[in-house]
This record gives sequence, structure tokens and C-alpha cells, in this order.
Amino acid sequence: MDIELRMRVEELHARYAHALDSDELERWPDFFTAKGRYRVTTAENEARGLPLPVLYAEGEAMLRDRIASLRHANIYEPQRYRHMVSAVLLEQQSASRVKSIANFLVIRIMENGEVVLFASGRYLDRIALPELRYEERVVICDSRRFDTLLAIPL
Amino acid sequence: MDIELRMRVEELHARYAHALDSDELERWPDFFTAKGRYRVTTAENEARGLPLPVLYAEGEAMLRDRIASLRHANIYEPQRYRHMVSAVLLEQQSASRVKSIANFLVIRIMENGEVVLFASGRYLDRIALPELRYEERVVICDSRRFDTLLAIPL
Amino acid sequence: MDIELRMRVEELHARYAHALDSDELERWPDFFTAKGRYRVTTAENEARGLPLPVLYAEGEAMLRDRIASLRHANIYEPQRYRHMVSAVLLEQQSASRVKSIANFLVIRIMENGEVVLFASGRYLDRIALPELRYEERVVICDSRRFDTLLAIPL
Repeated sequence: MDIELRMRVEELHARYAHALDSDELERWPDFFTAKGRYRVTTAENEARGLPLPVLYAEGEAMLRDRIASLRHANIYEPQRYRHMVSAVLLEQQSASRVKSIANFLVIRIMENGEVVLFASGRYLDRIALPELRYEERVVICDSRRFDTLLAIPL
Repeated sequence: MDIELRMRVEELHARYAHALDSDELERWPDFFTAKGRYRVTTAENEARGLPLPVLYAEGEAMLRDRIASLRHANIYEPQRYRHMVSAVLLEQQSASRVKSIANFLVIRIMENGEVVLFASGRYLDRIALPELRYEERVVICDSRRFDTLLAIPL
Repeated sequence: MDIELRMRVEELHARYAHALDSDELERWPDFFTAKGRYRVTTAENEARGLPLPVLYAEGEAMLRDRIASLRHANIYEPQRYRHMVSAVLLEQQSASRVKSIANFLVIRIMENGEVVLFASGRYLDRIALPELRYEERVVICDSRRFDTLLAIPL
């Protein structure tokens, strides 16, 4: 077992979580490689082999666009997130890539103080080494109920 | 501190969580030793010293029976789980055994997309080394309110 | 990366969580240095630069007083907590101090078995080395809605 690799991957997931939870969305594309892919789907779609993602972005420009449009869009209500990540499993594929599976849970906090369990699911990641960026982050949400505010990255 | 042992135990807890969350219930008995014990109880019962568990299974045959009957039983409504594990503490007792305490939280996702906080509590484990299987996994649930669907392992 | 330091800090957070979740509140001050500070605030107050904490205690005597008054106060209803800690990030500042950021989530379990998501937020810690005690633990809660039962440490 490569203990240091494991620590570094857990740290990557932690930095990603804190960037989103601190509303530092402009840092979000930096967690991906230049051609990195971000995909949100549901467990139901995955089980049925439906390739249609709920959300898809590939490459730095598209990832940056996504954040820019978020910033300019009418967000109906200010909100914040709190990410919890757990049960990380690694599978090293080569010197330049490791796969990671992890469970996540996202709490959403609305402006009025209301707190709800917003999303839960699995992260399926392909991580480039040694730079430790996501080549691909697939977010598989447990529930097919999606809030219109899903726009903010999970 | 034995860092590698800690990593391996956290990985065991993670593999256990992912097997259940992926509905690979038939793999569940493999996480236990041949004579392994699985016990679910409540914090209230533990505090009062009541030995009566909510659920008990011991040994590979009984663990496999449990899953077989689950598969054949009428499950009222399809559902999935999402396990979060946190705050792992270890206490090595010998070269062939380590004790682990961890907090858990289980989210339940119903067929209609409804997501609820299903259970929270503590795992108290005795883990056999070097094979890293549970000699005993005691699941102490915080709440005494139990759903009839508790049948699926926590 | 100092792997052992990371493990030890995660273990400190885990021991803290288990002490509170097991209602061993008298052990709570022992997690702090003799002059240690505990402060609870909200994300909203932090963002606005409002220094007014929701709760503040500094030094062993004040921390012990807090627990003693809790034990003697009328607690309206018995309750327990379950802490989940995730996404730990470290920044070592010197041989005698490390800073830690972590996400937390606290579940509250009432006497009648009701379970609610009680609080979420970030721990911002300054930890003294090598003794591994909190010089300062700042608990930044996501929601500004505070329950009157906040008295029990987060």
C-alpha cells in the first residue's frame, strides 16, 4: 500500500471540498487537468447504462465557462454547501494515474438558515499523477430528484 | 503509531461500506472471519446493559442465510444506502487483533428519490490480523426507532 | 508531507468527537492547552468580520466551568450527539504548532428517538505540538439558526 499516495488523494478531495464550501468557485477548474472531464449523473442512469449525464463539462475552457455563467446567472437564493467525503478506496493503474472511489454527502445551507441534506452519492475519479488533478470526476448522485440549483459543482 | 495498520483498517471499513452501498450483499459475509459475529443494538440498550440485540448473526452460514433470506423476502420498496464513516480510533491488542471504534451515518434512498438520514451510531469492531476481517462488528445505533427495513446490514 | 502528523491530528479530532458523543464531557477541557480557547461563531459573522462569538471560553478553569454549569443546568430534554469529521487539511507552521481545517456535521438524537441534522460547519484549529492539544478551536457553524441547547460543545 502506498500510504503517501493515499494521503495525497484524500488531501486532494479535501481541498476540492473546501474550495466549493468557501465559495471559491473560480478555483474549481484548477482541480482538473487541462482536458479534465466533470460529469454528474444518477445511480439510476448508471445502473441502466444510460450515458446521458445530468451535467457535463470537459476541458478548462468549458469548466471556466460553467463557473462564469454561474456567477452571472440569477441565483434565486444565496446558498452555501458543506461537503463530507468518506470511505475512499484507491486503485493505482500506472505511475501516472490512480482511480479513486469515495462516498460523499452534501449539506445545503440557505440564506434563511435552513439546512438540508442536499445530495449523497459516489465520486468516481481518475487522477493524474504526480500533479494530482482530476482527469475525470464522475459524480453519481443517489437520488434522481434534482434541484434546479444543481448548477453549483458537487 | 502503526500508520499502515490504520490505513488498512480504514480501507476495510471503506470496502464494507461500498459493498453494501452497491447492493453487493452477497459479499457481506466475506468481511467476517469464519466464526465472525455481527450484532446490532441501540445506545440505550448498551447503556442499560441489556444484552438483547436488535439483530444477531454468528458464523459464515448464519451470515449467508441472512442475505439469502433478504434476497427472497418481500422487500416492500426498493432502496439503497449510503454509508459515511468517520472518527476511526484503533487499539491494537496483539499481533493478531486490533480493536476499532468509528462513527457512522447511513443515508437511505427510496425508489421515489426520497433521501433520509436513516441511522447513526458507532461501530465497535474486533478485527483479525493479518487477514483484516471482522471477528466481531457491533453496530450501536443512536436511535431506538427502528425501521422495519433494518434487515439490510448496516 | 508528514504522514504521521496527519494521522495524529485526525486521531485527535476522532478522540474529541468520541468523548462528546459518549457524554464524557468532563474530558472535554483536556483536549485543550492550559490557556486553550474555544469559540463558536457563524459563517455569516465570520464573513462580515463580526468578532462577536456565539460562545467563548478560554483557559482550563473557564472550560471546566462551562461543563460544570452544563451538568447542573436544567437540560430540557436528554440528548446525544454524533460527530462526523471530514476533509481535514493541515498546514504546519512550526515545530510546535500545526493548523488544521476540517468539515464537521453533528447529528442530534433526542430522548424520543428523533434524529436531526443539528449543525454543520468548519473547525479551524491551532494545535500545540508535540502534546497534540488545541491551542484554539474555532467552530464556524454554517447556519445562523441556533438551538438553545447549543450549550453542549460542538
